[in-house]
Order: sequence, then C-alpha cells, then structure tokens
Amino acid sequence: MTYCVAMRLDEGLVFLSDSRTNAGVDQIGTFRKMVVFERPGERVMVLLSAGNLAVSQAIRESLAERVGVDGTSIWTAPTIYDAVRMVGDAVREVRERDAEAMANSGIEFNVSLIFGGQIRGEACRLFMIYAAGNFIEASAESPYFQIGESKYGKPVLDRMIRPESTLDDGAKCALVSMDSTLRSNISVGLPLDLMCYEVNALRVTRFAVIDTRNRYFQMIHDTWGARLKQVFSDLPDPTWGKAAAQASPTSNSAQTHEPVRARIPKVLAINDPPEAAGLIQSLAENPTGSSQLY
Amino acid sequence: MTYCVAMRLDEGLVFLSDSRTNAGVDQIGTFRKMVVFERPGERVMVLLSAGNLAVSQAIRESLAERVGVDGTSIWTAPTIYDAVRMVGDAVREVRERDAEAMANSGIEFNVSLIFGGQIRGEACRLFMIYAAGNFIEASAESPYFQIGESKYGKPVLDRMIRPESTLDDGAKCALVSMDSTLRSNISVGLPLDLMCYEVNALRVTRFAVIDTRNRYFQMIHDTWGARLKQVFSDLPDPTWGKAAAQASPTSNSAQTHEPVRARIPKVLAINDPPEAAGLIQSLAENPTGSSQLY
Repeated sequence: MTYCVAMRLDEGLVFLSDSRTNAGVDQIGTFRKMVVFERPGERVMVLLSAGNLAVSQAIRESLAERVGVDGTSIWTAPTIYDAVRMVGDAVREVRERDAEAMANSGIEFNVSLIFGGQIRGEACRLFMIYAAGNFIEASAESPYFQIGESKYGKPVLDRMIRPESTLDDGAKCALVSMDSTLRSNISVGLPLDLMCYEVNALRVTRFAVIDTRNRYFQMIHDTWGARLKQVFSDLPDPTWGKAAAQASPTSNSAQTHEPVRARIPKVLAINDPPEAAGLIQSLAENPTGSSQLY
Repeated sequence: MTYCVAMRLDEGLVFLSDSRTNAGVDQIGTFRKMVVFERPGERVMVLLSAGNLAVSQAIRESLAERVGVDGTSIWTAPTIYDAVRMVGDAVREVRERDAEAMANSGIEFNVSLIFGGQIRGEACRLFMIYAAGNFIEASAESPYFQIGESKYGKPVLDRMIRPESTLDDGAKCALVSMDSTLRSNISVGLPLDLMCYEVNALRVTRFAVIDTRNRYFQMIHDTWGARLKQVFSDLPDPTWGKAAAQASPTSNSAQTHEPVRARIPKVLAINDPPEAAGLIQSLAENPTGSSQLY
C-alpha cells in the first residue's frame, strides 16, 4: 500500500506521498510515488499514485512520453483539464494493454491517482483519477484528496483543512496525517516527498525529501504526540451515577441506562441471589424495547 | 457498517459500540451492537458485533439460548475460555445454517465479534472472534480490539492506551476514537453503548447510553476538536531553503532535494527559457537515480 494526500488551498497546492511498496509483508520496497511535470515559468503539474506499482509506472511513462498525432502532450496541453484527461487516457491505455493478462494471473487492475498543478494563465486545479480513467475535482467544500491507506489520516484533515488554510498549515497537517498513518500501518513508510506549490510560481520552489533524520518531521512526530497526550489528560474524566455532575456519560439523556441483556433460558433454572433474579425478571418484563433484539 | 472498540486494562474492561446499521446509504437503521450476559456476583460477559446484522443477531440468539446436552451454556461455562469457544461455535452454527443460502443471494458471510468479561475466580479476559469462529486474545502489548470501521479511530488508541491506563482514561479514549470515526464516516452513528467493567465487580456498574444530548460526549467532541486546533497552530511552521533553521523540512537529510521529474521527450523540442532547459538537462544526466523510475 501507500499513502498520498494533496490539497487545493487558496494559496496553492500541497502534495505529500510516502515511498513504501509491498507485496505481502516480506517483500518491501521503496519507490517514490510523486512525479513532477515541470516547464519552469510555464507549467507545473504533479502526479501521485497508489495501487499496483507496475500499473502506476506504466501510466507515468505513457503520460510523459505520449505525443498525439496532432502534437498534443502533457507538456503542451493548453489547460489542466486537457492534461487530466490525458492522465485518464493513459490509465485506459495501460488497462487495455495489461488488465486482461493481469486478470489471467489473478491480479486486479488497481490504481488511483491524484493530479494537480497550474498552467500559466489558469488557476490551480486538483483532481483524483479512478482506475476507470474518469476523475473528480477538488472544491471549496472538499479541498483535499487522499489515495491509498487513507482512513487513519483522515480525521485530522477533516478537522483542520479549509481552503483558506495557509500553505504552511497544509504542509503541517499533511505531515501530521502521514505521521498518524505511519504509526498505525506498516505498509506506509519513509522517506516522504513533500511539495508545496505557491499560486503563480509556475516552478518547483518548495520541495523536500523527508527521511528519519529530518528534524522538522521528528519535531512534528514528538510534539504532536506529546501535546495530544496533554490534551487528553486535561479532558475531565467521566463521572458515573445519578448524583454525578452534568458532564457525565449518564447525564442529559432520556433513554434508559440499561444495557441490552441476554436472558437466561428458563430451562437452566439457575439459582442466583434474589437481587439478580429480580433484575433479570424486571428486564424480561421491561416494555421499553431495550431488549427487543432478542 | 459499525464501529466497536474494547480494551483490557489493569483496572478492568472498557466496551464501546455505536448503533448504526446500513444497507447502502439510503437504508439506515439503529440497532444496538452490545449485549451483556450477566449473572450478578457470578459472571459478566459482553459481546460486541460488526458485520451482517442478521448473522450477528443469529449468533447472539444462539449463544444466549443454547444449552448443550451436558447442560453447558454461556451461563454456566466454568471459564471465559470455555465461553469464548461457545461464541466461536455459535458463529460456525450460523454459518452452517445460513452461509450457503446467503452466497446464493450474492451475500458474503461476514461478521466479527469482540467478547470479554470475567467469571468469578478468574481474571478479566478479552477476545476478538473471526467469521471462521476462531479467535485471538488481547495482551499487554495489544490491549485493545476494534471491529467495523476501525481505521479512523486507531491512531488515538495507539497513542494513548496502555494496560496501566485507568478505566476512565480508557472510556475517554474510546469516546475520542469514536468521535473521530463519527466525523469521518457516515456509516457509524449515535447512540453509543458505553460500559466500563471494574475488575471483580461481577455485575454491571458503569453503563451509559450516549446520544446527541449527552453533555459529556458533547464536551469531548467540542474540547478535543478545539484543543487539537490549538496544538496544531502551536506547531512551528515549516521553513524552506538552505538558510532555514534546523527545524525545517529540508534539514538533516543527506538525500537530494529534488523531486522526481518527468523528462520532456526530445521529439517535442519545446523552447523553454535557458534556465529550464538547463535544469531538465541536468536532471536527465543526473546519475543519482532519483529519476530511475523512468
């Protein structure tokens, strides 16, 4: 697996990818998942890939090399929308060539891509491309995309990222999201490729390869974890029972506070203490519906 | 889907389950996923279920009602280990009865369960049971289990939960983990069943049904989100470039800080400004291997 995240913010675009590939757990490799298509002063486009590595590499190769009969290519596409359609076409071309043979070997044609950037005279745009070659675009309501092992790192993005977030906040949040993913899933690994693209720069200005020795990522890893623990221990403990304060798990709910209890079959005729028999009896007769699953 | 989490801590056991069921996105229901098997003073066992609802319910029913020819049942099992084997047997019984008919309708036999508790004279134990009816037990190194939509809420558990965590910290952390999951996945929903079992209580003492009006959960939701934003904004921004401070994404790495760039095919003969042509040329000749994916 892999994990990649990209954001379209008012200030520009943020891209972050890991570099772990694996087949099972004993065949681990390092392949960078980010590739940049750059003509400085004219266009910068970034492609992130997750899924089958052979498929991803074939798509990247096809995309970089392909020149149409009319001379069109990713290098000369007049708009980002033309360019992302070429990405989709490259996906379909590779599927056409490889999917059947892969299926014969029991391998699914499986790839997902994030593609974004800017061409001079246009705004920044960001897309997610599916294995079918079709795609969706990021918007003000949904300013980020993730591919690969996306769930671990999603909550912090949902909490922090808005279109008006700064590029630096975007980079920070992408790194926190990646750090959470790295902690929880061994199929995602360092080094990372981090790129922040400033609107209208039209060239690569902020790029870093982040490995275990990178102090900024170490700082994020240590500080975030430590501060989270602090916030966690500052949260009031729950209080229990009828006399408890209002900030209690049992407060302000009109619902019954009894668990769903399984009933002891009569055939067993278990001799429990009277209090227990009474409790089970009252639940069996309880018409509130809390035990109606049985 | 659903989300359930349970922990085996030194002080006891924590169980938390949501109550959302869905078939697609337009057939949403509320079914409680936690059931308690209680003989006060003698045994308390809790079963959490995720997966196909009909399967889960059939297992629960079978488990509560089944009395072996030798009189054995979940109510009289001498040890928790005997009890969890009965849970596995119930899974296999339901599979035997329903799996083929389900497969004929194109439905997978899909269920996962968490089961734990205490029988008088024994320690607390916690198990996760697979759809095959076999199971694993929680340990000091892996003190919690999750079933259902588990990934969103995993990072905070990995950061916070140790066997020596208090029951209250366990409950808090389970609620934070659930809150993150609720934010990021609509197939998980309120109300929640929360139960904290204190070692040797041998009865239900701390149980709460948590719905939208519950102030403790509201407090956790609001405070955690707000404090997380604060911690996030307190993290130093990244700095870029060679003159930057040490806590920089570009510091302390021996690796090249160039992205993998796609090369412009020669056939295109694009006339870029000299700097650009020079840059691309130098990358094409660069023997560092950073562009060897092409």
